[in-house]
Amino acid sequence: MTFEVSADLDYTAMEPSTIVLNIHSLNNTRNVLEESFAVNAAHTLEPLNSYPEGNRLFRIAIQQAGAIQLSYHAVVRNSYRILNDLMHAEASLAAMDTSVFTYLHPSRYCQSDKLFRFANHQFGKIDNPFSQVLAITEWIHRNVEYLSGSTNAETSAYDTVTQQAGVCRDFAHLGIALCRALTIPARYCSVYAYQLVPQDFHACFEAYLSGNWFVFDATKLAPLNGFVKVAVGRDAADTAIANLFGNIYGNSLIVNSKLAEENFEPFYYDANKWEAITYD
Amino acid sequence: MTFEVSADLDYTAMEPSTIVLNIHSLNNTRNVLEESFAVNAAHTLEPLNSYPEGNRLFRIAIQQAGAIQLSYHAVVRNSYRILNDLMHAEASLAAMDTSVFTYLHPSRYCQSDKLFRFANHQFGKIDNPFSQVLAITEWIHRNVEYLSGSTNAETSAYDTVTQQAGVCRDFAHLGIALCRALTIPARYCSVYAYQLVPQDFHACFEAYLSGNWFVFDATKLAPLNGFVKVAVGRDAADTAIANLFGNIYGNSLIVNSKLAEENFEPFYYDANKWEAITYD
Amino acid sequence: MTFEVSADLDYTAMEPSTIVLNIHSLNNTRNVLEESFAVNAAHTLEPLNSYPEGNRLFRIAIQQAGAIQLSYHAVVRNSYRILNDLMHAEASLAAMDTSVFTYLHPSRYCQSDKLFRFANHQFGKIDNPFSQVLAITEWIHRNVEYLSGSTNAETSAYDTVTQQAGVCRDFAHLGIALCRALTIPARYCSVYAYQLVPQDFHACFEAYLSGNWFVFDATKLAPLNGFVKVAVGRDAADTAIANLFGNIYGNSLIVNSKLAEENFEPFYYDANKWEAITYD
Amino acid sequence: MTFEVSADLDYTAMEPSTIVLNIHSLNNTRNVLEESFAVNAAHTLEPLNSYPEGNRLFRIAIQQAGAIQLSYHAVVRNSYRILNDLMHAEASLAAMDTSVFTYLHPSRYCQSDKLFRFANHQFGKIDNPFSQVLAITEWIHRNVEYLSGSTNAETSAYDTVTQQAGVCRDFAHLGIALCRALTIPARYCSVYAYQLVPQDFHACFEAYLSGNWFVFDATKLAPLNGFVKVAVGRDAADTAIANLFGNIYGNSLIVNSKLAEENFEPFYYDANKWEAITYD
Repeated sequence: MTFEVSADLDYTAMEPSTIVLNIHSLNNTRNVLEESFAVNAAHTLEPLNSYPEGNRLFRIAIQQAGAIQLSYHAVVRNSYRILNDLMHAEASLAAMDTSVFTYLHPSRYCQSDKLFRFANHQFGKIDNPFSQVLAITEWIHRNVEYLSGSTNAETSAYDTVTQQAGVCRDFAHLGIALCRALTIPARYCSVYAYQLVPQDFHACFEAYLSGNWFVFDATKLAPLNGFVKVAVGRDAADTAIANLFGNIYGNSLIVNSKLAEENFEPFYYDANKWEAITYD
Repeated sequence: MTFEVSADLDYTAMEPSTIVLNIHSLNNTRNVLEESFAVNAAHTLEPLNSYPEGNRLFRIAIQQAGAIQLSYHAVVRNSYRILNDLMHAEASLAAMDTSVFTYLHPSRYCQSDKLFRFANHQFGKIDNPFSQVLAITEWIHRNVEYLSGSTNAETSAYDTVTQQAGVCRDFAHLGIALCRALTIPARYCSVYAYQLVPQDFHACFEAYLSGNWFVFDATKLAPLNGFVKVAVGRDAADTAIANLFGNIYGNSLIVNSKLAEENFEPFYYDANKWEAITYD
Repeated sequence: MTFEVSADLDYTAMEPSTIVLNIHSLNNTRNVLEESFAVNAAHTLEPLNSYPEGNRLFRIAIQQAGAIQLSYHAVVRNSYRILNDLMHAEASLAAMDTSVFTYLHPSRYCQSDKLFRFANHQFGKIDNPFSQVLAITEWIHRNVEYLSGSTNAETSAYDTVTQQAGVCRDFAHLGIALCRALTIPARYCSVYAYQLVPQDFHACFEAYLSGNWFVFDATKLAPLNGFVKVAVGRDAADTAIANLFGNIYGNSLIVNSKLAEENFEPFYYDANKWEAITYD
Repeated sequence: MTFEVSADLDYTAMEPSTIVLNIHSLNNTRNVLEESFAVNAAHTLEPLNSYPEGNRLFRIAIQQAGAIQLSYHAVVRNSYRILNDLMHAEASLAAMDTSVFTYLHPSRYCQSDKLFRFANHQFGKIDNPFSQVLAITEWIHRNVEYLSGSTNAETSAYDTVTQQAGVCRDFAHLGIALCRALTIPARYCSVYAYQLVPQDFHACFEAYLSGNWFVFDATKLAPLNGFVKVAVGRDAADTAIANLFGNIYGNSLIVNSKLAEENFEPFYYDANKWEAITYD
């Protein structure tokens, strides 16, 4: 599917400072058809493409105090695939590439090491790893309330499993932590999400099964095939929309995602089918 | 300097299982002069070289229940340099490579986001970043007691800053978290340590200043130029000696590091000199 | 029922110090038939009877360094009652005495304020408060593993609900915290426990329903009518067997509880009956 | 000194519910000269006087949904004394009453057990316990930023010691926890505070030295002799202004404290004097 996405960010810098921004669409399959990125005034924009995951960061050197307006716009074809043989899904360590191992380790917001018994008591008897991830997603959806303002930048999966309230970021962190506790590699994914209301950046998670990263979203707030992926990483610490260095603060953020073609058939998981979605 | 290092590990597997081992010396500068790695019985050994940091993991597929003996032996030339212009040290975001950014983020055991005020109150007025890292190292050395058994695998920098007891791993995590809280990239480093008593794997940390990773060790238990580096990563979650998957447990670990040449002049930091040590 | 209970404690004092001991049986109904308490050497023993709960502490002023042996022995009639109309149980705030309110508040090891959603999601739909407490007890029994050494003096209900391993103290803390999160007053109770194997001090919890404190024990390790109550309080912080002040440490603790009459019919909860046990 | 204090609270009940309110002045020395307490509509007000500390709670049974207005007004003579021989202050366990022991234990927001080493490293060498408490107060004042909105109802001393931001409640919790870690009994105290800007309920802490509870306030936001004490307890869990049971929420709170006589000489601690303030 093709989407037109945009993000407009507005900051006030009180002194020369640095922003590292991560709002560009991933471009793994040359899927970015058009793109523009602009900043008011003469600030330096420098692309930083290096993560193994292909996240496309930008470093913006703010030369002097003042108002900063940043504007990103892109037309992106999100090339996803629906695979349908998940009854044979495997999370086999023997076949796993080293680059995937890091997604088995606990991270700042996903303390899988502390969730081992919980995850095994709750999901350990399910024998297919795909079914385990689906069960995790359902458990989170049923038990955690989506409640804006109930959490903050320090909230982690270890909190959310018990406190049972949060936003998309918290839902994703808990999904990741529970997967890793079951030895299923899992990572955080920030996206532009078509049909998300209200429009904002969104977070979901990906689990690695049989060599593919499949997308899951315990919030169920937007169709899984309407995402334009921005960044993947171990958790929100790796994939922040913006890291600010210096005396600078954000004022507003306007995000938008529109369908750029005619028909859209939303994809959600169906517990009766062995289908899952992966993005190339 | 050239060292002869070895590690002998003994496990009992109750079922077919997998070990991912990270005990091989880094080989960044072809510094490994000799090396052998052996396992008893017919288990599959597979090297996994992929991390950007160059950690040399081995995946061992244990085919059946039984006793596993693993034996590593190497002769390694640790090519370090002492740089001496640290009065000009910089932790400049403008010049930083993207691969370094990840070491500014909070991680499982190094919650720098929660230590921001503490770090700035304690070390914020020191204006040279090298002096800041030295001051952090001294503060930890003076305030945290080295006490075997006082911490466990869940202990993090956020605990140690207040509870003030721990082992090398905890000292390193706290050093890393405080550096990151001051916007100085920092990472965990596991090593073979000459003159460490008793012999064991050791942990220290590295801070990124003016384009080099300098080594610091708040335990002061071994000379800084007697290390043979094994693994670097965000924290102990990335650099575990062994990750065990399946019903398998460790029985014993014997580590050794011997000088393989004649003279050794130990290097430690001297607050009156602007010298620091980095490994190639 | 009548029991003969004893506790022998052995300490080494490195300097003059103070022990505050809480091992004497409660004597609410003049139920202590015989009692002796002795200490080797000329240390001062001073009874401290003041808590509203009637805990009988002893302050022992250790005059000089040396070995301390403390020996308690008592014959106690534990006057319990089995009530059987719990289908009408109430946890009504309107009728609650102020002295009970404190057992609704969160405490050091029972952070009921952080378990509100969890408790309500899991047990909120059960409409009888007695059934809620029974369901809590069952949930803990099924989900938390009794595992010596898995926890320490800092472990709290907030840890145990997720980490799902612990000892009697942890089981009690979690029961208390979940009750309080449902607005059912609950408190910690340390006891001598007949038929507990191996013999040791034991911990259980009490919930306040319709004006009585009923005893619950999610470990199910000993019959509920074989307890001799030692102390009640908000959690283990209030009811420590011994608080040590000064450079003094414990060497050994021998606890014993024997039946001092002929027949004993063990009482456990039966989900099909509306019976509960309370001690006078 | 004599003060006129008042509190006006406004709630909306969505259903029959219960408020337990703790806003009445303590009346330890018949110091309450005049007093009125009113509620709109026909709700039941019931005094609950039982805590050992003499807190004067009120239970308000809300009969039906609707707006609740509560209004308290009192004229109170706060009978404090300035003692001046604190160079001889003692925190002796040998002389301590049992009712005081509870204030040595860790509580929900004051985890003194986790602050033992920190407290001893920072304040252990000061040999007079009064000087220790003053040093604690100064350390908090210098290191913790008073920042509205930086903390929430779950924030505890263990957080504040590191995160170093908070409001009066957090300052008090940290003071208490550090005292207890040094074996100095300490408790939480909520007050009406003359000259506090803006007017609100305030929190401070008391330390038990030589048989008196002395008042300390690390915020230094109001004179220590201008307090009208409302409640004392182990921490904020014991002394909440209001506990709400049922679907009911607060809309507004207006607090006021005015001097009801002519002259007022503010009292603050002076590090050069051995003076401290206690309330009868």
